[in-house]
Amino acid sequence: MAITHFLPPRRILMGPGPSDISPQVLQALSRPTVGHLDPLFIGMMDEVKSLLQYAFQTKNSFTIAVSAPGSAGMEACFVNLVEPGDKVIVCRNGVFGERMRENAIRCGAQVVVVDDEWGAPVSVDKVEQTLKDHPDAKVLAFVHAETSTGALSDAKALGALAKRFGMLSIVDTVTSLGGVPLLVDEWQLDAVYSGSQKCLSCVPGLSPLTFSPAAIDKIKSRKTPVQSWFLDQTLVLAYWSGEGRRSYHHTAPVNSLYALHEALLLLQQEGLENAWARHQTMHQKLRVGLEEMGFEFVVDTPYRLPQLNAVYFPHGVNDGAVRQHLLNTYNLEIGAGLGALAGKAWRIGLMGYGAREENVALCLSALKASLSTGS
Amino acid sequence: MAITHFLPPRRILMGPGPSDISPQVLQALSRPTVGHLDPLFIGMMDEVKSLLQYAFQTKNSFTIAVSAPGSAGMEACFVNLVEPGDKVIVCRNGVFGERMRENAIRCGAQVVVVDDEWGAPVSVDKVEQTLKDHPDAKVLAFVHAETSTGALSDAKALGALAKRFGMLSIVDTVTSLGGVPLLVDEWQLDAVYSGSQKCLSCVPGLSPLTFSPAAIDKIKSRKTPVQSWFLDQTLVLAYWSGEGRRSYHHTAPVNSLYALHEALLLLQQEGLENAWARHQTMHQKLRVGLEEMGFEFVVDTPYRLPQLNAVYFPHGVNDGAVRQHLLNTYNLEIGAGLGALAGKAWRIGLMGYGAREENVALCLSALKASLSTGS
Repeated sequence: MAITHFLPPRRILMGPGPSDISPQVLQALSRPTVGHLDPLFIGMMDEVKSLLQYAFQTKNSFTIAVSAPGSAGMEACFVNLVEPGDKVIVCRNGVFGERMRENAIRCGAQVVVVDDEWGAPVSVDKVEQTLKDHPDAKVLAFVHAETSTGALSDAKALGALAKRFGMLSIVDTVTSLGGVPLLVDEWQLDAVYSGSQKCLSCVPGLSPLTFSPAAIDKIKSRKTPVQSWFLDQTLVLAYWSGEGRRSYHHTAPVNSLYALHEALLLLQQEGLENAWARHQTMHQKLRVGLEEMGFEFVVDTPYRLPQLNAVYFPHGVNDGAVRQHLLNTYNLEIGAGLGALAGKAWRIGLMGYGAREENVALCLSALKASLSTGS
Repeated sequence: MAITHFLPPRRILMGPGPSDISPQVLQALSRPTVGHLDPLFIGMMDEVKSLLQYAFQTKNSFTIAVSAPGSAGMEACFVNLVEPGDKVIVCRNGVFGERMRENAIRCGAQVVVVDDEWGAPVSVDKVEQTLKDHPDAKVLAFVHAETSTGALSDAKALGALAKRFGMLSIVDTVTSLGGVPLLVDEWQLDAVYSGSQKCLSCVPGLSPLTFSPAAIDKIKSRKTPVQSWFLDQTLVLAYWSGEGRRSYHHTAPVNSLYALHEALLLLQQEGLENAWARHQTMHQKLRVGLEEMGFEFVVDTPYRLPQLNAVYFPHGVNDGAVRQHLLNTYNLEIGAGLGALAGKAWRIGLMGYGAREENVALCLSALKASLSTGS
């Protein structure tokens, strides 16, 4: 069959990301492409940097967007901050903690894992004990908001622990940035990466990243070269830095950065605190409706992410059939369970532009209808 | 000053890329985002694969788009095909050959460099001699179309040499794909990567990539793990493969892939041979005009890329001032010289949708006016 234009329908994206995107951001995406060294584009990149500093609540001058998805942002942190033989403490309470461990190992690190149950937050007490047992560790790595379970960990306490023991922290904020409080400077976090397609409601493909001065010092004093050329941030730094002539590293994803600029502008206009409050308000409405239908949350109340609602579905429900029905009948996407939660739970996202009254109302109504028809 | 919407002008992009983008492709880019595991999206990815197979002229079932720029495509080839201690022959006749060398070194390879002058093609004779001297080498790496100089190398002869000596080839086709003949299967090339923003005239940020069965065999028989998690193609393969359930690797850059789908569709509709001929026709018109103005080509006629015209500008011309004048007065971007050609030559691109009569006419006219005003 001959291939023709791909004309997707308008889906309502309530999975774990990509999230719903504002029409304003999609419009920005398709503005005319300019050269990646065009003075106008370089001016826009300076604005993206400043808007990202606001979103991350940091003054870090190294604050950029990696030209690739969040998993490349994760890898950028590990390959730049970790040298072969370094001891790294990795907290694992879901898929992305495990991915951090795999990254550390591929950098030749000596890895110590602190395990917590899927759905539980990272245990600050266990981490403290582990740091006491391994005072020679160089890096503490953890996930702020576990996308696989919907659990929020105490990044402030974990960041403070890392500082107390003289370690650098690597923090996954892919799902937290823009959805729940994240204060990079106040919490003394060192290498923090995120994704464009969650609570920022931008297109997938970019990874916001910020390095503290301590992280930059570590990179500058490395004894071994960074194993990745593409992710070697000493090379990228020259391109993003505000001063002097931009040196060419790679061709920036110009149009995706237009979209990120617009999405961050929307966040700034709303205000971070208002965005956090909106996620919480929408979550409470969704929670009440889900509980009325007999869903149980995977995560205990104090650690529950408003933007990612992982719920065990009632016994007897046909996982795939219901999700397919939602998609085919209502153009509504919710997320399957991942890893240990596959076939047991769904993940309902209320991220960024997706955290709206009409989405909550549609989701509850469509779920109720789909469950009662037994599909 | 408050940050507001970024509203770029319509530039005419005649640098070394990004190239002019068809309005049809920009329109596809901003279509509604769907989930990266949505059955509709997975169907579209199968079409992208098939369209890429056409563009590369290959039946390789491993034919994908890396979710990051061409330099990540380059790195994907090296980290997957090269193991620590492997001997790698790298041909260097410009910036991107040197980048290949840096990549090979970061993989722990023992690198042998075959040097040629900037602006010259890779010498097939020198390479043959080097392969004779180093029959234990595992990989031959070269650039088909050097973006820094505009020189075309004989990928067919180099591919045949690699086969004769039982080596795998890694080939940079970032600037060649879609602009000049490239026959991956017929020429027996093994690991071939490109970029979305050159002769495919798609937005920057994706890297088409194809691996031959021999390359896949090498990856499967590796003794050491791939050092990059993000670029480990054994993990990515499961996501792109047509069979069975897609396993999650990373969130695909959904909208950029819409644009690539549309750009590849346009190429298929025009026909590869017609696209190659159009680049050649436009190049000849540009060449005549440039020579009349006293420009001299960096590259000798037989090795000259039609899509990237590197020319020494006449003595006394103020490099930066003229390019700035072209940009400010005509919204016309041409490329500066890179590396050894910085401050001596310009690079005028006629890539993909940019290889059109109106662009050639505008470029010649605007250049003539800018040079005569002495700016």
